[in-house]
Amino acid sequence: MSPRWRLSLIGMGMGSPAHLTLQGEQALRRVDLLLLPDKGEDKAELAAARLRLLQTVRPDFDAEAGGGPRVARYAVPSREGADAADTPRYLDAVRRWHDALARAWTQALREHLPQGGQAGVLIWGDPALFDSSMRIAQRVARELPLEWEVVPGISALQALAAAHAVPLNELASPVLITSGRWLRQHGCPADVPALAVMLDGGTAFEALPDPYAWHIWWGAYLGLPQQTLDSGPLPQAGPRIARARAALRQAHGWMLDIYLLKRRGADDC
Amino acid sequence: MSPRWRLSLIGMGMGSPAHLTLQGEQALRRVDLLLLPDKGEDKAELAAARLRLLQTVRPDFDAEAGGGPRVARYAVPSREGADAADTPRYLDAVRRWHDALARAWTQALREHLPQGGQAGVLIWGDPALFDSSMRIAQRVARELPLEWEVVPGISALQALAAAHAVPLNELASPVLITSGRWLRQHGCPADVPALAVMLDGGTAFEALPDPYAWHIWWGAYLGLPQQTLDSGPLPQAGPRIARARAALRQAHGWMLDIYLLKRRGADDC
Ligand SMILES: C[S@@+](CC[C@H](N)C(=O)[O-])C[C@H]1O[C@@H](n2cnc3c(N)ncnc32)[C@H](O)[C@@H]1O
Ligand SMILES: C[S@@+](CC[C@H](N)C(=O)[O-])C[C@H]1O[C@@H](n2cnc3c(N)ncnc32)[C@H](O)[C@@H]1O
Repeated sequence: MSPRWRLSLIGMGMGSPAHLTLQGEQALRRVDLLLLPDKGEDKAELAAARLRLLQTVRPDFDAEAGGGPRVARYAVPSREGADAADTPRYLDAVRRWHDALARAWTQALREHLPQGGQAGVLIWGDPALFDSSMRIAQRVARELPLEWEVVPGISALQALAAAHAVPLNELASPVLITSGRWLRQHGCPADVPALAVMLDGGTAFEALPDPYAWHIWWGAYLGLPQQTLDSGPLPQAGPRIARARAALRQAHGWMLDIYLLKRRGADDC
Repeated sequence: MSPRWRLSLIGMGMGSPAHLTLQGEQALRRVDLLLLPDKGEDKAELAAARLRLLQTVRPDFDAEAGGGPRVARYAVPSREGADAADTPRYLDAVRRWHDALARAWTQALREHLPQGGQAGVLIWGDPALFDSSMRIAQRVARELPLEWEVVPGISALQALAAAHAVPLNELASPVLITSGRWLRQHGCPADVPALAVMLDGGTAFEALPDPYAWHIWWGAYLGLPQQTLDSGPLPQAGPRIARARAALRQAHGWMLDIYLLKRRGADDC
């Protein structure tokens, strides 16, 4: 029989075992092979969190003696061109990046599971929110006989809301989940009273035309030892957050943050 | 010393222990008292799921012999006026409903934990998404010395995305999470390529002006034995879903569903 592969995209939450669901734990228990991204120095802590999670759930794992699941480290290719301001060029660069990642996964499956079997990838947060793993799995499935599944996980957005004890939406009204890039280009649609912003390389909230209209809840390094929170009316909290963000990025060498904006005066209770 | 209370709002996912996080499990392990909503016949299955979860995590729980945590059942007051088409009247009705629920929680804490202690409520999905529990806890904290915390959980939205293996957002673009009521009143903002609709008592997707522009992913009773999925281009899948929805509601006596809409032609990979 020719080899067949299965792949679980396992939402892991914010890295600590506290966020792993029982379903995620069970999926991790089943894997013969874990694909582990090597992102280079700055995000080394995130790779370490993945390995710790594996060690917690799979005490049989022993890299030296070769016990338990195998781990295939793959280098995350650089995202050349993904800093393009122009959206079609940006999308093109991201697609090429997905192609390269799919080649890395395909190669890892062939090399480390030549007879086929169950592989897994630990996905930061939830695989359905601003994440590439489903798009990569789709590509791999064109190269190999692959069945893949998604295990949901706690996303950064939920970690933010829980840490601040703030609902994402006001009564009966929507929240728009978006990226810093999109917010800079589009602004906030008039009808929308709440915005959650991920993947902001900077402080896109500063581009909102009327800061006095907004309240912000911000969180950096959620779930990690460096977790930092701030919140308040945007005119006061915004500059404070911009300063804290710069100082923290400097201190730790990398930054991971997310925020929620709600129009003030919108019902809070 | 006068009594003090703590309350955990524990996101439980879609009812099965598979969705509970380790953090949720630990929170449930700590409770002296669980507040359990009694919603009447139709949602009896949801109450049963809560009780099963409690029994799984707390084998010491024994309602007859009085072992383990105590359970305070409270009647969920009716939402009089919450069917108002007029938004201010609707909001008013919902706020009165929150007030009534806060009275029920306050009374249960005083009655079942007169010396104070740790209480918990199992919240369907995630407490931050279209849920009243934080608003109720805020009200209770005005009546009692109460500290409360939020434990995130897998929301119906994430269960939907995982079941269909579909990302919530397209590449670098946003998703609007909203209610059926809001979608009927506002339509979809022009810039927004993806919509996730919860709390739709009907089929608000039928009100979108251009069905040919959309693809839909629908899920009913996610995580429950009756789970039903459908998806496709809206002109074909919409009427099929409307029929299935009516038949399932008839067959089971109640309905719980959610859907994701994405503009077609939006990048899928
Ligand atoms: C590529 S997206 C992945 C999101 C992930 N799939 C999720 O569900 O959270 C990365 C973005 O998520 C947010 N994020 C992820 N982890 C975070 C953390 N621990 N603290 C703050 N923000 C975080 C940041 O906005 C970051 O730019
Ligand atoms: C009051 S909201 C609560 C949402 C919850 N806090 C969450 O995070 O999923 C209830 C709505 O969530 C959706 N929902 C909750 N559970 C569901 C399920 N098992 N299957 C499908 N939809 C569900 C439906 O749209 C329903 O109208």
